[in-house]
Amino acid sequence: MRLSSLLGPDIKKVLKEDPEQLRVLLDELHPEDLADIVSELEPEEAAELLARLPARDAAPIFERLEEHEQEEIAAEMQPESVAHIASEMEADDRADLLSALSDEFSEQVLENLERVDPEAAEEVREIERWPDNSAGRLMNPSFVAVSPGMRVEEAFAAIRSHAAGNNEFIYTAYALEGDRLVGVVSVRDLILAEPRDRLSPHLRRNLISVLPTDDQEDVARKMAKYDLNAIPVMDHRGEILGIITIDDALDVLTAEQTEDVQRLAGIEPLDLPYFKTSFLAFIRKRGVWLVALFLGEFFTQTALRHYDPVFQAVQGASYYVPLLISAGGNSGSQSSTLIIRGMAVGEIHLRDWWRILVRELAMGVVLGSILGIIGFARVLMYPEQTVPFATTIGLTLVGICVTGCTLGAMIPIFLRRLGLDPATSSTPFIASLVDVLGIIVFVQIAKVVLANVIEHAGAHPTLLPL
Amino acid sequence: MRLSSLLGPDIKKVLKEDPEQLRVLLDELHPEDLADIVSELEPEEAAELLARLPARDAAPIFERLEEHEQEEIAAEMQPESVAHIASEMEADDRADLLSALSDEFSEQVLENLERVDPEAAEEVREIERWPDNSAGRLMNPSFVAVSPGMRVEEAFAAIRSHAAGNNEFIYTAYALEGDRLVGVVSVRDLILAEPRDRLSPHLRRNLISVLPTDDQEDVARKMAKYDLNAIPVMDHRGEILGIITIDDALDVLTAEQTEDVQRLAGIEPLDLPYFKTSFLAFIRKRGVWLVALFLGEFFTQTALRHYDPVFQAVQGASYYVPLLISAGGNSGSQSSTLIIRGMAVGEIHLRDWWRILVRELAMGVVLGSILGIIGFARVLMYPEQTVPFATTIGLTLVGICVTGCTLGAMIPIFLRRLGLDPATSSTPFIASLVDVLGIIVFVQIAKVVLANVIEHAGAHPTLLPL
Repeated sequence: MRLSSLLGPDIKKVLKEDPEQLRVLLDELHPEDLADIVSELEPEEAAELLARLPARDAAPIFERLEEHEQEEIAAEMQPESVAHIASEMEADDRADLLSALSDEFSEQVLENLERVDPEAAEEVREIERWPDNSAGRLMNPSFVAVSPGMRVEEAFAAIRSHAAGNNEFIYTAYALEGDRLVGVVSVRDLILAEPRDRLSPHLRRNLISVLPTDDQEDVARKMAKYDLNAIPVMDHRGEILGIITIDDALDVLTAEQTEDVQRLAGIEPLDLPYFKTSFLAFIRKRGVWLVALFLGEFFTQTALRHYDPVFQAVQGASYYVPLLISAGGNSGSQSSTLIIRGMAVGEIHLRDWWRILVRELAMGVVLGSILGIIGFARVLMYPEQTVPFATTIGLTLVGICVTGCTLGAMIPIFLRRLGLDPATSSTPFIASLVDVLGIIVFVQIAKVVLANVIEHAGAHPTLLPL
Repeated sequence: MRLSSLLGPDIKKVLKEDPEQLRVLLDELHPEDLADIVSELEPEEAAELLARLPARDAAPIFERLEEHEQEEIAAEMQPESVAHIASEMEADDRADLLSALSDEFSEQVLENLERVDPEAAEEVREIERWPDNSAGRLMNPSFVAVSPGMRVEEAFAAIRSHAAGNNEFIYTAYALEGDRLVGVVSVRDLILAEPRDRLSPHLRRNLISVLPTDDQEDVARKMAKYDLNAIPVMDHRGEILGIITIDDALDVLTAEQTEDVQRLAGIEPLDLPYFKTSFLAFIRKRGVWLVALFLGEFFTQTALRHYDPVFQAVQGASYYVPLLISAGGNSGSQSSTLIIRGMAVGEIHLRDWWRILVRELAMGVVLGSILGIIGFARVLMYPEQTVPFATTIGLTLVGICVTGCTLGAMIPIFLRRLGLDPATSSTPFIASLVDVLGIIVFVQIAKVVLANVIEHAGAHPTLLPL
């Protein structure tokens, strides 16, 4: 239902023939839809179009483009035009744009911005002080500031003058004493109050805020929890640095989720959409983990080779290995995914590790027993197989599921404890580890249950020195 | 940093001794933090506490509890008290509450609600008409309605009277002609307009809306795309049924992501947080997929057994099987995750399948070649291994990665094409399929490259009749 995909080709044609038509579209379409159209043009065409518009009209379109599109289009424009557009963008988007551009070009745009709009340049520098993915990077340093001594009607006047200048969030006003934030009041409360009322009694003083160094995902979750449309960014001294609005929080949640899902599948996060990611980038971001996991899996071959006497003694045993270890990998990835997601949404904390261990242990026993019984029955369907061998397979499945569930649950907690991101390829890594351990579990159980067979064949397996 | 976890035990003690203190807390804490405290109490205690509060104060706390908590606490209350609280809740939360309660109790509450607040009962019925996870279920049938002929100051009066009655969204007013929505105007635009202006020229008439039957995740993505704080739900005739607000969209996104992640790991979505999910529910939701995948993996054993002559002829070959098939599984789950996520966020469409196939095919060749070269070198490190065997391993890795990448990418697209959710256990399912295919690829390549060895041993493998 994207308008641009319905009308795209037609609109493109019209715009090429008569670029003035864009002005008409401006009145009729949402900037988001215009951005969709612009992003289907060639960068030169898009640059030409945007340059024709007043910066004020171009900014809302330009800031809605993907970063890589902004970069491509800006490269076709004069640094001064880009500066003009940037000065009309929201501060956080402006900072994102400047960091998307090449260093040299970004420098030139910033120099121009300095001349066009020194305050906008200063805001960029304020935001760029903060680390990537922090609240500081998301914030807009400009907001509706009021003082607690004002009357309600004066607060409205402050809101009106802020709304007139730009497209920024105005539905909460921030009451300052000096630079310190002492309370907030929503436009809702102001509408319900009498115009001549003092602001002070209408202020909410139990502030919910974030630090500029807070992780952007935590910010988004906090806003979701408290149903906030905007949240102030305050430093340790209670000074307000800016505000973060809900639209940015939504984008953050989606981007962070994509990263997490990719990490769970053993892919370095891509930064760009599927079709925008270059072939080489894919090879790098997928290859690095595939190779790491491949090297890890070589231990399965080493282990199997080491236990060769056992597998020689127990005819056909090696054919059950993929079946056994995949059960471990599947149960392990279930557990790790549950724990990683639980930690990401704040349902599970490090201090819960003991309860989780007990639970996953029990789950491993039950799930392993279910698979074990099925496996036991399946093996006995072959007339040449014996009850001791079927028992070995059954018990191995219990052991492997216990290993999978407990390691799958504990490794993410351990990684988090070390301050690492538990999503970083935990799942495939755990699967590889569980694969090797699964082979060891199988051999150790076989040594006991099938002792006769193994002794008879003269095989004396030792514990694998990995 | 949850206040309740810092102060929880103290607050609990105070409240038990003097429940009136809750009134003091009401002024000082956000309802969200109060809900955190209430959720740590026993259901009877929580019910007693909430019953002491006026329904108007209890509702914002109650509606922030998890559904299962609401159910447990409501079960300790009189249907009439629950009805009173429900009447003060937002309509979508009210409908959720009633569907969380047991059928009989829900019926009793609804009967009481009918008496207490017939309009609220009617709203519940309106919402419950729509299917689960649809826009209709998320919407609030109550919103600020204005008419295009009004003046700006009259619109403000409508907003004020709506804001006074409840805690609902007021920052967009919806202009109706009859029941038809003809335009929207934001409080921002109203603040900037002159009070005596006619509303009509200030209306935005290019409406962005959703159908009541739209999927809730699509609704959330649309709101994120257009940076909307609320979106109207309209039927095919242009009648407005209600609005959906951004806080609900955020919650939907998080819940849908959790489901997707769980499905990717082969777990039936849990509905409840980790610690709230009963042991039995876990066994069911994990066990069903573990068993299905386990049965699928039995084909690997069948395949290996079928090709026994080949594995007997090529000493040690079976020890490489886990290594080989895990490379296929890993590359397959990378591809399927990329495609599933790309479709979820709208970056990838069904019509792109051909481009994806070409890309993934090429990626499989390159990634497989990288692994193949490493595998080739590793095999030759064993003095007893021959170049033909190393070549077989290397080529098999190419074949397996190509199989993994292409099937991993195409199966989700195929499932989507059939109207199924591609996240439903695609990844582990694909891994199992690729495992079996990997064995076949290995044997077919071995038959060619190691023809001498296999012929010599008198083995004549045929294609596996699965």
